[in-house]
Amino acid sequence: MKTNEKLCFASDYMKGAHPAVLKALTETNLIKTKGYGLDSISEQAREKIRKACGKHEAQVFFLVGGTQTNAVLIDAFLESYQGVIASESGHISSHEAGAIEASGHKVLCVPHESGKLQAETIRRYLKDFYDDENHEHIVAPGMVYISHPSEYGTLYKKEELKEIRAVCDEYKVDLYLDGARLAYALACPENDLTLRDLAELCDAFYIGGTKCGALFGEALVIPDPKRVPHLFSIIKQHGALVAKGRVLGVQFDTLFSDDLYLRIGENAIKKAAQIRDVLIKKDYRLPIVTPTNQIFITFANDQLKSFAEKVDYGFWEKYDEDHTVIRLATDWGTTDEEIRKLIDLL
Amino acid sequence: MKTNEKLCFASDYMKGAHPAVLKALTETNLIKTKGYGLDSISEQAREKIRKACGKHEAQVFFLVGGTQTNAVLIDAFLESYQGVIASESGHISSHEAGAIEASGHKVLCVPHESGKLQAETIRRYLKDFYDDENHEHIVAPGMVYISHPSEYGTLYKKEELKEIRAVCDEYKVDLYLDGARLAYALACPENDLTLRDLAELCDAFYIGGTKCGALFGEALVIPDPKRVPHLFSIIKQHGALVAKGRVLGVQFDTLFSDDLYLRIGENAIKKAAQIRDVLIKKDYRLPIVTPTNQIFITFANDQLKSFAEKVDYGFWEKYDEDHTVIRLATDWGTTDEEIRKLIDLL
Amino acid sequence: MKTNEKLCFASDYMKGAHPAVLKALTETNLIKTKGYGLDSISEQAREKIRKACGKHEAQVFFLVGGTQTNAVLIDAFLESYQGVIASESGHISSHEAGAIEASGHKVLCVPHESGKLQAETIRRYLKDFYDDENHEHIVAPGMVYISHPSEYGTLYKKEELKEIRAVCDEYKVDLYLDGARLAYALACPENDLTLRDLAELCDAFYIGGTKCGALFGEALVIPDPKRVPHLFSIIKQHGALVAKGRVLGVQFDTLFSDDLYLRIGENAIKKAAQIRDVLIKKDYRLPIVTPTNQIFITFANDQLKSFAEKVDYGFWEKYDEDHTVIRLATDWGTTDEEIRKLIDLL
Amino acid sequence: MKTNEKLCFASDYMKGAHPAVLKALTETNLIKTKGYGLDSISEQAREKIRKACGKHEAQVFFLVGGTQTNAVLIDAFLESYQGVIASESGHISSHEAGAIEASGHKVLCVPHESGKLQAETIRRYLKDFYDDENHEHIVAPGMVYISHPSEYGTLYKKEELKEIRAVCDEYKVDLYLDGARLAYALACPENDLTLRDLAELCDAFYIGGTKCGALFGEALVIPDPKRVPHLFSIIKQHGALVAKGRVLGVQFDTLFSDDLYLRIGENAIKKAAQIRDVLIKKDYRLPIVTPTNQIFITFANDQLKSFAEKVDYGFWEKYDEDHTVIRLATDWGTTDEEIRKLIDLL
Repeated sequence: MKTNEKLCFASDYMKGAHPAVLKALTETNLIKTKGYGLDSISEQAREKIRKACGKHEAQVFFLVGGTQTNAVLIDAFLESYQGVIASESGHISSHEAGAIEASGHKVLCVPHESGKLQAETIRRYLKDFYDDENHEHIVAPGMVYISHPSEYGTLYKKEELKEIRAVCDEYKVDLYLDGARLAYALACPENDLTLRDLAELCDAFYIGGTKCGALFGEALVIPDPKRVPHLFSIIKQHGALVAKGRVLGVQFDTLFSDDLYLRIGENAIKKAAQIRDVLIKKDYRLPIVTPTNQIFITFANDQLKSFAEKVDYGFWEKYDEDHTVIRLATDWGTTDEEIRKLIDLL
Repeated sequence: MKTNEKLCFASDYMKGAHPAVLKALTETNLIKTKGYGLDSISEQAREKIRKACGKHEAQVFFLVGGTQTNAVLIDAFLESYQGVIASESGHISSHEAGAIEASGHKVLCVPHESGKLQAETIRRYLKDFYDDENHEHIVAPGMVYISHPSEYGTLYKKEELKEIRAVCDEYKVDLYLDGARLAYALACPENDLTLRDLAELCDAFYIGGTKCGALFGEALVIPDPKRVPHLFSIIKQHGALVAKGRVLGVQFDTLFSDDLYLRIGENAIKKAAQIRDVLIKKDYRLPIVTPTNQIFITFANDQLKSFAEKVDYGFWEKYDEDHTVIRLATDWGTTDEEIRKLIDLL
Repeated sequence: MKTNEKLCFASDYMKGAHPAVLKALTETNLIKTKGYGLDSISEQAREKIRKACGKHEAQVFFLVGGTQTNAVLIDAFLESYQGVIASESGHISSHEAGAIEASGHKVLCVPHESGKLQAETIRRYLKDFYDDENHEHIVAPGMVYISHPSEYGTLYKKEELKEIRAVCDEYKVDLYLDGARLAYALACPENDLTLRDLAELCDAFYIGGTKCGALFGEALVIPDPKRVPHLFSIIKQHGALVAKGRVLGVQFDTLFSDDLYLRIGENAIKKAAQIRDVLIKKDYRLPIVTPTNQIFITFANDQLKSFAEKVDYGFWEKYDEDHTVIRLATDWGTTDEEIRKLIDLL
Repeated sequence: MKTNEKLCFASDYMKGAHPAVLKALTETNLIKTKGYGLDSISEQAREKIRKACGKHEAQVFFLVGGTQTNAVLIDAFLESYQGVIASESGHISSHEAGAIEASGHKVLCVPHESGKLQAETIRRYLKDFYDDENHEHIVAPGMVYISHPSEYGTLYKKEELKEIRAVCDEYKVDLYLDGARLAYALACPENDLTLRDLAELCDAFYIGGTKCGALFGEALVIPDPKRVPHLFSIIKQHGALVAKGRVLGVQFDTLFSDDLYLRIGENAIKKAAQIRDVLIKKDYRLPIVTPTNQIFITFANDQLKSFAEKVDYGFWEKYDEDHTVIRLATDWGTTDEEIRKLIDLL
């Protein structure tokens, strides 16, 4: 098997699992357990997550990927006639191939600031909806979806999340947080939102594994144990129930042992900062500067062409006919050598 | 982590992966590759599968589980107004929590014989449909779904599959085969259907990994490369696209190296035969006797109670108020010691 | 415009509206009212229906047709993961082109007796479901659907409906009754179920207009006003909200003035009895004899051919290669002359 | 029945049917015909429409309302993974309660100019989509939806429609035109788009009846007879098939006799012009001035309050905290007296 010759900063899911995770999978491999996450290892993992979130009765479900988790949770929470408010840049708005609509729910797009929703934007949307005399002809907003870090790598402050919570309470809509890259928020000095805060302020959120050290997998947390009585069946109905559920349980059991999940993002944050420093020093055009593990750069297309020969990056968007915005991402396993080589190319 | 103290014959997905699969995952763990199955290892695995099926242009997609694979493929093949013909005992009819209906398609149930659909049953259904003057008010059958081995562990003969194919051609409906336990068919002396036959006779089928040596994963094969142009997007829309797709590719690459997949079921078949012999000798009530890795036994409920204290089995169905049908399953890794202990208990 | 030369007994929706209904539409035609059923005529019609049902707070909605009403109500009542129990012969099971599955819900078919569900059949289904240890992998039954008269023209006795209600209470599922031909039940001497009984025993039911004197339209009644808070939006989402809703209101206002709806079926019942008497006297093969306005006859195919030249009938089903079951239906407007001509042909 | 005391300019569907339509319904009321639109009157109506459109093989289907027609056609045309491009102001985007999403399709919103889509806007969207390297993760645009007149009452010029057609051809997407108020376009001197043009340039469009003289009903035209082979079943599946389909046929037969449909909008256009003239003369704030039968006015809220006591209008949108945009609409039957009274109030 040939390894990738180019430097790879395309995203944070290009490698396998954190060695501790793989070790646990190996050690438990030949144990026979119950299926569908009903095994004792998965239960132990759920307990650790409940403890880390300070919600001892929370429902915790392990799913395979982010789009799947979003589609299942949103379908489970919303009534058939409701939609979900999200940023235009939200993952569910743009990069999930219509997975939310596939179960009949509209994504209600609102403007964002650097990838984040403002409480005021949400309030205005909800107020305008209820002020419209014909609102029963319009999709009713039943939930707010945000990402932390956002798709632009920005972070919500605790105060901001509290304000959004207040709007959700005022209009009786749920608040759901997509934590695909949550480890990279938690490891970030700028971040003031803990797992306990999320469990306090959100009706549901997921703790990303795929991008944060697992081979794959996301842990969905619903603090109120009575919120959705039959999520198991809903997961099955979405084709999202893993027969060998313990494979997910083992991974999260490891990630939540010895606070591994809280520390696993630190390397990515440090490495991203090193790249960022060099880019700034060298006057690269950065459309946005954010504190987490994603770095956005606006390249002239011809300059990008030669860069692309040596580095795998993530295409972000066409800026104009002559420029392209790309993304570099670091992860829990990015090495010093990779950083050195990348910096040499900048 | 406490291991399961009881003997476990509940199903064939109670353990992790075949050691060779886990080894390959370990060896490739820190390689960085493209995501979403676009990496070279996944491509290599697809090539091996194409070769094993004798279809060098076949589309091959790796998915996580059986229900998911069924839901995606059936949704991809059917027009919005069509349904799928299946046995009442078919997995999609009864044990997928409505995953097929969730994307808007009706499962059109027809009677079976020991879990198998007869060509004549399908022909009658299709003929009656078109003979009905009001058939445009009825869900149009667009596909036939069968399982090999069936949910009862029975096998289709090549001749039977050809007859079903002929009916499908006559009425222009697709034929799709669920191979969740395909390795246990391929390893069975009674089986005369090869991967090449399946690729020749079916419009789509999947090669089961989860129950046949993989940590998880199924390989969907569509022999005609032009049959569904945008399956990638459809998979994504179903929340079924794995970011680290290479994790699936690595596993199938191993399963299709050195014919491992063709051999991996042999142990289960031999072990099941040993159990079956003892059951017959001891006059147990067997509601059906089939040649693959599943064994069904009708227990009096009080007898079952004591059995259940020592053995984890699969609940199959209530036979009547006083009797229950259970299932024991062997797998690629069932040990001699497990068999010895089980036989001692019978 | 050429009128139909042949005698027409194909169904009970072959003509326009009862003259009183058309008169009301004409008289109100140029009045301007609010749209979407928010007008005062619709409200007056709703009040009359509430009064006739003895439920002064019931929700009443007017929809266009039966399949639409079934699809909307079932989708509104069921949770996303639930299905609806129905007879194999139920309209939603077989003749609605998958409208129920189109919003993601499985129809859970159970056997019937002459088109009717027995309380015991439903109880067994529900008990077996909950007895199955793996029932979370199976579509959860959330509702029972029955028709009165049934698709075979049979009638539930009040006692039978009470038993079904008791099962629904025991297992906490809703009871929904399709009254597409309800007027023909209410006008039948054998019938002992009043509108008040239906409102007492069902969680929802609809009063058929299309087949019972309206130009088109069905009145959906939900006795508990709090059962579905946003049915207006759900109706709109299903494309089932009529802009000039008053057109439906005017019709039901007429049908529920001077007890017209209670009397409108009488003519059909008397006329059907006359046909039935002749058929029995002349030894026709009647696969089922029922007291309402539908008559089923098993014809030899060659005999049917000549009958078909003179009479439009409803195809029911192929009996065997040489025989066909057909249906004749009378309606509120069937004339003595039509009956005389038909009897002459028998 | 009390008639509405206030002047009513709320919309163009507040009255019943054009007298000629009601007369035809009355005259044909007691004729018995086949159901589901298979009767000879409906066929005659379809023939007249085909002739008016210059497409003698076009598929023509009659449906009940606009949202329903949009939902059925869009679901019928799109593949399961595709979405529809529409203006943010498009009816399907904002006022159909998620009917499009309910069958799994995303509405892909793009900016508009006075309610109209520009060819260049569509081209950019499609180009950007295909330029995005990750577009297989995004909902694929399969169709363009426009309204003529637009929701703002503006009209497409023939040249503009040709340009949009060219973009659709370039990117192989369908073009669908919502003609809910088409009669008001056809009667407008500014309009240069005939029915033949629409049939030439669109893959599907519907001729609005509900707002244009019918009691209810829309005529869906698909010029290519082979475009959707099973639309009948799809309509049934959507709960949109009317049993007494001839009720729709009779109405369109009348509307397409003696060019009634081409003339029926003239009165509304003239009356709207009279109102518009007065508003301009009196310096009302008009957020947009368009040539068809809808008039938009920005009122100060306190001024609106007294206006509302005498006139039923349509709420359009909050302009700001102190102002509201309302809509007045004329129709085929607006009387001189109504106009006089309204003008007196201005």
